Amino acid sequence: MIVVVKKGYKKENIQTLLKKIEELGGHPHVVEGKEQLTVSVLGKTEKISLKYFEVFPEIENVMRISKPFKLASKDVIPEGTVIDVKGVHIGQNNFCVMAGPCSVESEDQTLRIARAVKKMGATVIRGGAFKPRSSPYSFQGLGKKGLEILQMASRETGLPIVSEAMDLDGVEMMMDYVDIIQIGARNMQNFALLKELGKIDKPILLKRGMSATVEEWLMSAEYILAGGNHKVILCERGIRTFDTQYSRNTLDLNIVPILKSLTHLPVVVDPSHGTGFRHLVSPMAIAGMAAGADALIIEVHDKPAEALSDGPQALLPSDFEVLMSKLEKVGEAIGKTFQTEISKKGIAS
Amino acid sequence: MIVVVKKGYKKENIQTLLKKIEELGGHPHVVEGKEQLTVSVLGKTEKISLKYFEVFPEIENVMRISKPFKLASKDVIPEGTVIDVKGVHIGQNNFCVMAGPCSVESEDQTLRIARAVKKMGATVIRGGAFKPRSSPYSFQGLGKKGLEILQMASRETGLPIVSEAMDLDGVEMMMDYVDIIQIGARNMQNFALLKELGKIDKPILLKRGMSATVEEWLMSAEYILAGGNHKVILCERGIRTFDTQYSRNTLDLNIVPILKSLTHLPVVVDPSHGTGFRHLVSPMAIAGMAAGADALIIEVHDKPAEALSDGPQALLPSDFEVLMSKLEKVGEAIGKTFQTEISKKGIAS
Amino acid sequence: MIVVVKKGYKKENIQTLLKKIEELGGHPHVVEGKEQLTVSVLGKTEKISLKYFEVFPEIENVMRISKPFKLASKDVIPEGTVIDVKGVHIGQNNFCVMAGPCSVESEDQTLRIARAVKKMGATVIRGGAFKPRSSPYSFQGLGKKGLEILQMASRETGLPIVSEAMDLDGVEMMMDYVDIIQIGARNMQNFALLKELGKIDKPILLKRGMSATVEEWLMSAEYILAGGNHKVILCERGIRTFDTQYSRNTLDLNIVPILKSLTHLPVVVDPSHGTGFRHLVSPMAIAGMAAGADALIIEVHDKPAEALSDGPQALLPSDFEVLMSKLEKVGEAIGKTFQTEISKKGIAS
Amino acid sequence: MIVVVKKGYKKENIQTLLKKIEELGGHPHVVEGKEQLTVSVLGKTEKISLKYFEVFPEIENVMRISKPFKLASKDVIPEGTVIDVKGVHIGQNNFCVMAGPCSVESEDQTLRIARAVKKMGATVIRGGAFKPRSSPYSFQGLGKKGLEILQMASRETGLPIVSEAMDLDGVEMMMDYVDIIQIGARNMQNFALLKELGKIDKPILLKRGMSATVEEWLMSAEYILAGGNHKVILCERGIRTFDTQYSRNTLDLNIVPILKSLTHLPVVVDPSHGTGFRHLVSPMAIAGMAAGADALIIEVHDKPAEALSDGPQALLPSDFEVLMSKLEKVGEAIGKTFQTEISKKGIAS
Repeated sequence: MIVVVKKGYKKENIQTLLKKIEELGGHPHVVEGKEQLTVSVLGKTEKISLKYFEVFPEIENVMRISKPFKLASKDVIPEGTVIDVKGVHIGQNNFCVMAGPCSVESEDQTLRIARAVKKMGATVIRGGAFKPRSSPYSFQGLGKKGLEILQMASRETGLPIVSEAMDLDGVEMMMDYVDIIQIGARNMQNFALLKELGKIDKPILLKRGMSATVEEWLMSAEYILAGGNHKVILCERGIRTFDTQYSRNTLDLNIVPILKSLTHLPVVVDPSHGTGFRHLVSPMAIAGMAAGADALIIEVHDKPAEALSDGPQALLPSDFEVLMSKLEKVGEAIGKTFQTEISKKGIAS
Repeated sequence: MIVVVKKGYKKENIQTLLKKIEELGGHPHVVEGKEQLTVSVLGKTEKISLKYFEVFPEIENVMRISKPFKLASKDVIPEGTVIDVKGVHIGQNNFCVMAGPCSVESEDQTLRIARAVKKMGATVIRGGAFKPRSSPYSFQGLGKKGLEILQMASRETGLPIVSEAMDLDGVEMMMDYVDIIQIGARNMQNFALLKELGKIDKPILLKRGMSATVEEWLMSAEYILAGGNHKVILCERGIRTFDTQYSRNTLDLNIVPILKSLTHLPVVVDPSHGTGFRHLVSPMAIAGMAAGADALIIEVHDKPAEALSDGPQALLPSDFEVLMSKLEKVGEAIGKTFQTEISKKGIAS
Repeated sequence: MIVVVKKGYKKENIQTLLKKIEELGGHPHVVEGKEQLTVSVLGKTEKISLKYFEVFPEIENVMRISKPFKLASKDVIPEGTVIDVKGVHIGQNNFCVMAGPCSVESEDQTLRIARAVKKMGATVIRGGAFKPRSSPYSFQGLGKKGLEILQMASRETGLPIVSEAMDLDGVEMMMDYVDIIQIGARNMQNFALLKELGKIDKPILLKRGMSATVEEWLMSAEYILAGGNHKVILCERGIRTFDTQYSRNTLDLNIVPILKSLTHLPVVVDPSHGTGFRHLVSPMAIAGMAAGADALIIEVHDKPAEALSDGPQALLPSDFEVLMSKLEKVGEAIGKTFQTEISKKGIAS
Repeated sequence: MIVVVKKGYKKENIQTLLKKIEELGGHPHVVEGKEQLTVSVLGKTEKISLKYFEVFPEIENVMRISKPFKLASKDVIPEGTVIDVKGVHIGQNNFCVMAGPCSVESEDQTLRIARAVKKMGATVIRGGAFKPRSSPYSFQGLGKKGLEILQMASRETGLPIVSEAMDLDGVEMMMDYVDIIQIGARNMQNFALLKELGKIDKPILLKRGMSATVEEWLMSAEYILAGGNHKVILCERGIRTFDTQYSRNTLDLNIVPILKSLTHLPVVVDPSHGTGFRHLVSPMAIAGMAAGADALIIEVHDKPAEALSDGPQALLPSDFEVLMSKLEKVGEAIGKTFQTEISKKGIAS
């Protein structure tokens, strides 16, 4: 941590500052330039808030030189974490595709689509039972009935399930039904919920907030890790920028290699929400793989015109099939182990 | 609602589209141009999702011409809502200032600051008992103990209290202690929580999400209003933009006259979080009043160097006093009824 | 300048780094912590690019602790610059309003509006002869004919003129016609043009780029100052953010007190372009004054429905009159010297 | 074009509106709903500014349903434009890589790097002779001397040259030296310059402005096309967002498939400026190809620690070699014709 002192500071105030630093557990080291005095703070500084310093009127700036996240840091597991979800490996050199409808609408619709995406190589089924909707007047999901349908789809196909929880009640309900609990972008900084997620034993797919910085996102993961749940998967789903005329969000693929350099946690890319329009999904899915993602999560619907939510961004099964074959070739070209078949051991039990 | 059809559309598909519109409760009206065909949809269209249309391959664009929010709309109460909080009026031509420390740190600190801001004309006390912190390692607030301290401050000064709840447990705990429940920026789209807030009888100060559009914000208010709680106060607290070097957020004052033209709900401006630095707070507080806000919410701390959170943005009581006197003069200049004294009736009871 | 070295660095590489720093004219000072080594660089570091350091593989981060702008810095003229434009003072405690049509459309239109705004207290006439238009098919301005009309307006009213130049030819043409040359947001980083502006003797109103940071803006001012032209006026005109549904831009008033703390250059606020809609202009004009601006620049048109550009954001003369009277009262409340009358000496000559 | 009229409008004002529309060349068609009246405007509406309508007090909203760009539209050349630069084909199914140093620093440096990148399969040499720098105190490029060095590099390698011009003087100077003139992000809306570029016969690589929308970018291309120069290449180089801690810009790859659906112009991706850090360049280069780009432009430097500009984002030749081999494999996987050898006919002459 570096504290930059203003020109024309008073000597006695600097003494107070140095004492404060020692109280907080830091070791101050003064460097006196001709124009500027700086204090390098050594020791365990990650628990010292930058703000303690900023209130001194003599201080111009305080900068942290070590990262605020600890358990999420790549230093902890340099080779990268692998999360095993009923035999599907997420992380390191493995690659897989999670696919399914945006919302669970009916047993028939969900099973139909689940069978189709499995046949084409998806190894995790996605589907929403609780839908975060910006309007109170929109379809809010089938709730528990939806979870039961997802479970049927899992039983039939042998594939694990990822589905979104919106609050603690939802998390509890899901414990018996789903294999990965998704936390949506709007809840990325719902700290009360994050704390509870730290206490459970179930992988969490943590979506990035619409305007979350890398550090904020990793600090939200840190909440879950610090609580004791080490199975966190990060999911980029598009950020909010100044232009939304031709895509709903801006899929930020820069974040993929950035995360790979900062954290050991697996990274998933969601090109469906990240673009919002079907004709953009396939190119951005391939680009996401090429950027280094460990998995993709993609919406597929066989009758998008009847979908109760997000129809325009869902791929048709036929498009999905073409995409999967391209992903397979590109995966080979860049050396990814593409899982399109999984062991079904342990599911029927 | 206007549906724009692509050039070269197929006649039979348009028939399917028109049927779909009628099924959804709309009345389609075709306008056939030389180059472009458009369908104006009349009737109750607010419950029709734009997405139903976008899935038709023949459709180029769908635009809503009426607003998605209904109960929050200015049309409902053109003269504007006034919310009465123990005699403090928020809305219409009234103006008031809410002030206090960022966090409740101790009984002594809170009472000392509460007395000071009351003396200078504040009519609502603010103070956090539950603190949303981006790091799990930071001070998280005193919790229930903090609420008890706030209640003491309210009893002594006779001023109502505003404090933030982070989840449903917090809301329930607060019912007996605080007069306005604040929902923070990070929870603006916590729809599960919003639904519960619609069921209680207590004013809600709903902060704008860091990158929430006007419509998203008003739709979150709509969740609360639709649940039956009509006491919603909107609070602008700074948005996230590309430049954060010299201010933590960008206080968006444009939103104040925009909200005034769209909704009847009162609007509060928070120049403390909206800037993040003490030397910016007073100019932006006055600017917020000038832009048309109904109230300000300001952090004041008499020992900012010891504050456990957000010290650098807290005004000293002496700065706050100067600010209040300027606000009084500017309020007079623009015709606001500035409440610096309130009736204490009903509080002692 | 602080250089943070990565954990596990090689001693010999650090020697190379220290030598490089000395070559560049800096004095390195090593601080060795248990976990992290940092190098404080003293001496004249403003001409050392951060990038020189970033290429060393051992380096984690480089931070500048002094500002990159020098001539624009508040340190140079702590009391603030005043620019005298034919008797109108811009800067320090003075306040004035620049007003007129967006575009010069005809002699009659311009003179009519110029007379009206003068009568109501404006002390500088604005009007565009060269219009930057995003479409090549839109009205591009009257060019030289427009400048002649502006000169007539100036002669008749005795008020100085501000008008936009889009390239060097325009600047040269304007030298005989206008009193302040405006450089638009889209040219803020047209460095070739900025260099030429440094060589002329005419005040420059430098608008902020749509997504320019404070430092980038001040560095663009630095280009002009470094060339020898010290008459630079900064103009905030709204930035680009994620929400453009109800205002064209987001007027960033935080920037006003930020600039006041960083630079001695006068600051003007443009609530017309900063909002884009007439009903938002007056509240944001008053807010701009309240935030500490030295002047406002406002579009006024008496027949907005016939305006060839930007009609919807132009105030009617009657609205402008009401606004001017409010500004006068607020100016008094916050202690600004509001110039609504100016000396006409030297104009008739 | 759709004009939405406010509730409670006056009949006589609507008559004035309809007359105005006809004057402007549009054919109004009124649709009267129970709550809302809308006017569909048919005819040649692209030259009618939206603003004409917004000034009517009765009007709530005006929406354009056809695109403002015409010559840049995909409708004009549905199969896509191919630009032939001395035998290098840019567009349609072709793929090529432009590479070289950020700045031309010396004859030795430029020739050395040019030879290296040619050997590895680049087919266009990049290098800056005029550098847009945000600080007037930074290295500004070698100017004409730099162009001469580039010409030498082109003669020796037989590869065409792309280099940036910052103003009209630069463009004129470049006509004899370079094969593609690059216009930087900061000049994307320098309309005076764009008009001149329309008059020359030389391909233009038009970089996207830091916060330019798709339509603004295409309208800037339209300026050049409308002037008569049909050789426009678009280049995505990263946009400005809220997070710049770990990458300088956010490379917006969504724009690639968006552009492919809107325009016939070729699209180039610049992962060097789009990320700003060497370790992000290769993954994002491959992702750019995967998203559908027609070419990449990449900075390569063999001694980045000595580079006079942008050293930290330059790839080492050894990294570039690895990247090129991956690109070749991915290109095959997605069916691109990767040009790594070019015809040298016509260069020696």
